[in-house]
Amino acid sequence: MPNISFEDLKAEFKRVLIKKGCDNATADLSAQLMTETSCDGVYSHGVNRFARVVEYIDKGYIDLQAKPTKVEGMGAFERWNGNLGLGNVNAKLAMDRAIELARENGIGCVALANTNHWLRGGSYGWQAADAGCVGICWTNTQPNMPAWGASDRRIGNNPFIMAVPRQGGHVVVDIAMAQFSYGQMDNKALRGDMLPVPGGYDDQGQLSCDPKEIAKTWRVLPIGYWKGSALSIVLDLVATVLSGGRSVSNIGKLSSDEYSLSQMFIALDATRIAGQDYLAAAVNEVLDNLHESTRVDATKPVLYPGENSLAIRNTNLANGIPVDDGVWAKIQSL
Amino acid sequence: MPNISFEDLKAEFKRVLIKKGCDNATADLSAQLMTETSCDGVYSHGVNRFARVVEYIDKGYIDLQAKPTKVEGMGAFERWNGNLGLGNVNAKLAMDRAIELARENGIGCVALANTNHWLRGGSYGWQAADAGCVGICWTNTQPNMPAWGASDRRIGNNPFIMAVPRQGGHVVVDIAMAQFSYGQMDNKALRGDMLPVPGGYDDQGQLSCDPKEIAKTWRVLPIGYWKGSALSIVLDLVATVLSGGRSVSNIGKLSSDEYSLSQMFIALDATRIAGQDYLAAAVNEVLDNLHESTRVDATKPVLYPGENSLAIRNTNLANGIPVDDGVWAKIQSL
Repeated sequence: MPNISFEDLKAEFKRVLIKKGCDNATADLSAQLMTETSCDGVYSHGVNRFARVVEYIDKGYIDLQAKPTKVEGMGAFERWNGNLGLGNVNAKLAMDRAIELARENGIGCVALANTNHWLRGGSYGWQAADAGCVGICWTNTQPNMPAWGASDRRIGNNPFIMAVPRQGGHVVVDIAMAQFSYGQMDNKALRGDMLPVPGGYDDQGQLSCDPKEIAKTWRVLPIGYWKGSALSIVLDLVATVLSGGRSVSNIGKLSSDEYSLSQMFIALDATRIAGQDYLAAAVNEVLDNLHESTRVDATKPVLYPGENSLAIRNTNLANGIPVDDGVWAKIQSL
Repeated sequence: MPNISFEDLKAEFKRVLIKKGCDNATADLSAQLMTETSCDGVYSHGVNRFARVVEYIDKGYIDLQAKPTKVEGMGAFERWNGNLGLGNVNAKLAMDRAIELARENGIGCVALANTNHWLRGGSYGWQAADAGCVGICWTNTQPNMPAWGASDRRIGNNPFIMAVPRQGGHVVVDIAMAQFSYGQMDNKALRGDMLPVPGGYDDQGQLSCDPKEIAKTWRVLPIGYWKGSALSIVLDLVATVLSGGRSVSNIGKLSSDEYSLSQMFIALDATRIAGQDYLAAAVNEVLDNLHESTRVDATKPVLYPGENSLAIRNTNLANGIPVDDGVWAKIQSL
């Protein structure tokens, strides 16, 4: 597995996007976000997903010429149409606008309809935190999980992100409503490994840690069972009704591919609200207390959300980003 | 177990609060919220918790004379101090103010410091939805759960609520970050019952469905394992830094009792943003699709979040609210 430098990986993403018809600035931004995602260790939503992005461009789901347009504004809230542009660029611009609205109003919100997969949702949390803001965002998805009590997939795993700015490393939670992603389960199944905790049901209706058994039913498990199911449903409803876009159900009716999603972006100007010094002191007090936890396994520190991403980022910036041989060859061939 | 009418239960709550020194209007509002909570079937956070509320009044944690005061405003965001007033009244007033801000700005937010336990968090979701708003709110708590990888309790179960208005019954999710509450586990233990899914760890470090075994370690499980742990930490941080109030860690240092909490209230004027007709159609399309799910158990319908509460409410309004004999005798004696 080669280690590719940040700049080389970004240049390769950018080259392909420009070849496909993307303008230089948009290609640069999209490539930057995908490279950051890979550099932070979220390979599944960066380098390993790039071929799918290109496939969706080729299929016409992603319109490289499209820019998001404002539909209407209402003070601190705005509704935008993503016009099926590149998902990560649309999401970046939506959070940028939510941050601008937060500068003026303390809080700002953009509801974005008709957009594409944003790749790593955490990107827009890190982005808000880089701007000194609390960032909250979520997306809906195609139907990929059964609701609690159901066996057929009608709800989304609808990733939810919440970020708090901190000098020295932001605190960022980025969680899908499914306990495990399909990608994680596929990887475990390929290696013959078990999941660390149950990820779904087998064909006898029993909870299972075996990804091969779960793949027979696709009854994947929401986080917290009925709780994550309920949260998924309401996240979808809020994004749908406020953006005027498609619900999970509607996305499923449109295609077996995943496009025309609805997303929410909320920013709060935390640095101005709390003051830089208080903000830093209050956050660090919580994290220090967390780090002093009694460990279940003495060799495994208790980490704050985002701490591991930052460590991987620093390693990958120093040593290059590990990219699977086949994935790298595929990208170079595009 | 007697069934008490809504009006009789409310009158009894109100009588005691006034006897303790509460003004008529505040007592009426607090009693109304506690009765609604009980009527919706959340007895643990209504009638069964009233004696604890009175105990906290007697201990001086709850100041019946206190009213929340605005600390500062910034357009659509305001920071308030709860001044240790009655928690459910403070929370109701905070969501009222968030709704007012949403009417002016599309979105509104109140961060509330130094308040008391809000009893049922879902109340403020139903409240926002009654006003035609999407409501999002959460609270921190005393430390009551270990972080992922830790064995000592340093994070909160920090209930999170999200509500969408719907004629015929709002969609409301109200979930703590612990898989089960202490009250739920105590009740199961008393009856000798097992939990339906693992709720924590036994003293061998194994996941357990036995509430008596979990009680030996108090290593209760966050929803989604590492995911709920991470979300709990960030919910606490956001409420703390934006309100300027106490973190979970700080609340734990203050007392072994639970007071001086930090809470967040966000409202979005969904009816104005989406329009009444579109809002209703979009929500019902999602719920209809959900109801058409293939059931795991043919006798158990797949419900939307809030559907069960509404059914219990209607039953209890018709038949009276079931109240445990001892609980009722205790309240009458206060």
